[in-house]
Amino acid sequence: MLTELGKKAKIASRTLGCADTETKNRALMLIADSLEENAERILAANAVDMENGRKNGMSKALLDRLALTRERIAGFAGGMRDVTGLPDPVGRVLDDFTRPNGLHIMKVAVPLGVIGIIFEARPNVTADAAALCLKSGNAVILRGGSDAINSNTAICDVMREGLKRSGLPEDCVQLVQDTTRESANALMRLNGYVDVIIPRGGAGLIRAVVENATVPVIETGAGTCHIYVDRDADIDMAADIIDNAKTSRPSVCNAAECMLIHRDIADKALPVICHRLLDKNVEIRGDREVMELISQAKEAGNEDWGREYNDYIIAAKVVGSLDEAVDHINTYGTGHSECIVTENASAAEEFMAKVDAAAVYHNASTRFTDGGEFGMGAEIGISTQKIHARGPLGLNELTSMKYKIYGGGQVR
Amino acid sequence: MLTELGKKAKIASRTLGCADTETKNRALMLIADSLEENAERILAANAVDMENGRKNGMSKALLDRLALTRERIAGFAGGMRDVTGLPDPVGRVLDDFTRPNGLHIMKVAVPLGVIGIIFEARPNVTADAAALCLKSGNAVILRGGSDAINSNTAICDVMREGLKRSGLPEDCVQLVQDTTRESANALMRLNGYVDVIIPRGGAGLIRAVVENATVPVIETGAGTCHIYVDRDADIDMAADIIDNAKTSRPSVCNAAECMLIHRDIADKALPVICHRLLDKNVEIRGDREVMELISQAKEAGNEDWGREYNDYIIAAKVVGSLDEAVDHINTYGTGHSECIVTENASAAEEFMAKVDAAAVYHNASTRFTDGGEFGMGAEIGISTQKIHARGPLGLNELTSMKYKIYGGGQVR
Repeated sequence: MLTELGKKAKIASRTLGCADTETKNRALMLIADSLEENAERILAANAVDMENGRKNGMSKALLDRLALTRERIAGFAGGMRDVTGLPDPVGRVLDDFTRPNGLHIMKVAVPLGVIGIIFEARPNVTADAAALCLKSGNAVILRGGSDAINSNTAICDVMREGLKRSGLPEDCVQLVQDTTRESANALMRLNGYVDVIIPRGGAGLIRAVVENATVPVIETGAGTCHIYVDRDADIDMAADIIDNAKTSRPSVCNAAECMLIHRDIADKALPVICHRLLDKNVEIRGDREVMELISQAKEAGNEDWGREYNDYIIAAKVVGSLDEAVDHINTYGTGHSECIVTENASAAEEFMAKVDAAAVYHNASTRFTDGGEFGMGAEIGISTQKIHARGPLGLNELTSMKYKIYGGGQVR
Repeated sequence: MLTELGKKAKIASRTLGCADTETKNRALMLIADSLEENAERILAANAVDMENGRKNGMSKALLDRLALTRERIAGFAGGMRDVTGLPDPVGRVLDDFTRPNGLHIMKVAVPLGVIGIIFEARPNVTADAAALCLKSGNAVILRGGSDAINSNTAICDVMREGLKRSGLPEDCVQLVQDTTRESANALMRLNGYVDVIIPRGGAGLIRAVVENATVPVIETGAGTCHIYVDRDADIDMAADIIDNAKTSRPSVCNAAECMLIHRDIADKALPVICHRLLDKNVEIRGDREVMELISQAKEAGNEDWGREYNDYIIAAKVVGSLDEAVDHINTYGTGHSECIVTENASAAEEFMAKVDAAAVYHNASTRFTDGGEFGMGAEIGISTQKIHARGPLGLNELTSMKYKIYGGGQVR
């Protein structure tokens, strides 16, 4: 069954991959219209998922993520229209040179082909991911969770109707109806039809994909971000940055989970920073030295280093040097976003060179690791792996490349 | 055991990744000296492998690939020295912009970290791969086959001695001593220590890696290259290109395995092309129409389409249109290198846009898909996958990226 979906996607991708910018943008506009015109139908399907969720005892937080409203659907449509304004990543000339033998070689950006996206409860992924895949010339096979199957099916059907009106193949967007674990495993092993798998969801989902996929994976990983307050830090700036990185949205992957404070500044910096955090009801889990300086701190256990709380909790540790901070981060970090607060530019450069992460910050909140904040317009996730793309995955990151070689009969 | 190797490699990669160009080049020079100074020792180890190979009934072709000579070792050393002349891929600024909030964002090339290379009999891979990995700032774990274990061990030991003299960590280059299937499987599942696996070898090895790896893989795949002779082709040029692409080195992945001839030109083109090939003892396996025109052609079976002969054999088929040629290639090709011979520039553009391959050629031999021919200086293989890099893998393709963000206290 999945092989059939794969074949259809591959065939559709051949047409979509050669479509010009205007054709793709017109399709995105028609899909946006279709989403708004069919809002009632999508809401009716969502009501079934919500009802099932309540019956199955789904938590309030998850129900909230599952719930669609007319405004949320308008949001999908708006996001779809916004993507039409972004530059087309296909056809960019990445390199262009002529060899001594006269061969003219161009390296150009082309679509990846077929992208498989495996995601969890939130039905908004269905529309958001489809928009980015279509604009970058990729057919997409979506495989969402069983909790949102009715919502996802309605959204996908409506998007396919928009595609049909645009003249592009409907099969540019397909949804896997089977929501068993077997269908996810089959999708991630569909070599020859699927060119890349992008998991969007929690650590368990990502681990399962990394473990089982034979199709190449772009891993969008967890974030355990650290803020290192250097000996030469501006303490107020450090407090601002840590407060923001921890409390502005604790549930996201670019939120801070641990602060490391240089010993020479700890007695002055820790009280300022911790009182800011305690005022916002952040629990501080510190090592022995932190405990001595901050009476309200709780004792950190070994399991607190490298932990992604996604909550109003922060780990705190005193370090003796920049190198000790770097070692801690390279040992316990997830390679997402890491920050040094310092007025010493050479310390900052050293930290940024030695720390192994997608994004390294000097004097700014880790919360900026985001496609929108980086000016990409939209993103499909944050990559924490080393190959293909690292950091926010925007439209350019959804492309591959092709060498075009122009000759006049050259042989070797 | 392999976890220990992984840990050592990761630690070594931290130092190597921050090493400047001069330090890396000096190390490569010292390793090259070390290889030449220790040629006797390497040859003695190779003699053991050769003797074992003969005892085990290894074929003459494989024995030839296994054999080292003083000249071959000088060749490794020369290749190592050549790599010092190539530009350092680390630190390249890939993007540089300032956001409206004042954040200055730079995207720079950084090493991948630790590269695992799994390869078969040829001991030259040990030295060649190490040179490229070191120059690109990556620690490397080499896992060769049992047939060459003594040669590989000697080469690796000698390279480590050169590294030691240079002051860089010896563990920048390590060899897995265990040559069982289990050690290869363990290496490709060493997430957290190994950042990418590159298999170098035949289809069986590559399939095993794709099937079993949990570490990201850069697939260097097989090549089933096609030459399409368009209706508007220059027939003599087509004959030159097909002759070269088939016979200049039939065993390599960029050699042609199939020619597709437009029906409108078949009766004129096929005799010219086929007689050139038959003169060089190339066996032609044709479809019915080819058989009618070329009496010496043998009948092609279904298994001949998409087959990598690596031999003096070529498949041949008459097609009715450019689209039929494209469909055949996208169905049976391996996405390596594909060529159109035509005097019609718009037909060439259409072919190059529609064919899904790493390299698409207009009027030139597919044999040019090679790092050296593309001006990269050296390559570690040809990627036929879509993510990270496609086509020849040179030094730039052995790097990842990192965002460096410079702020003045910005919060979100």
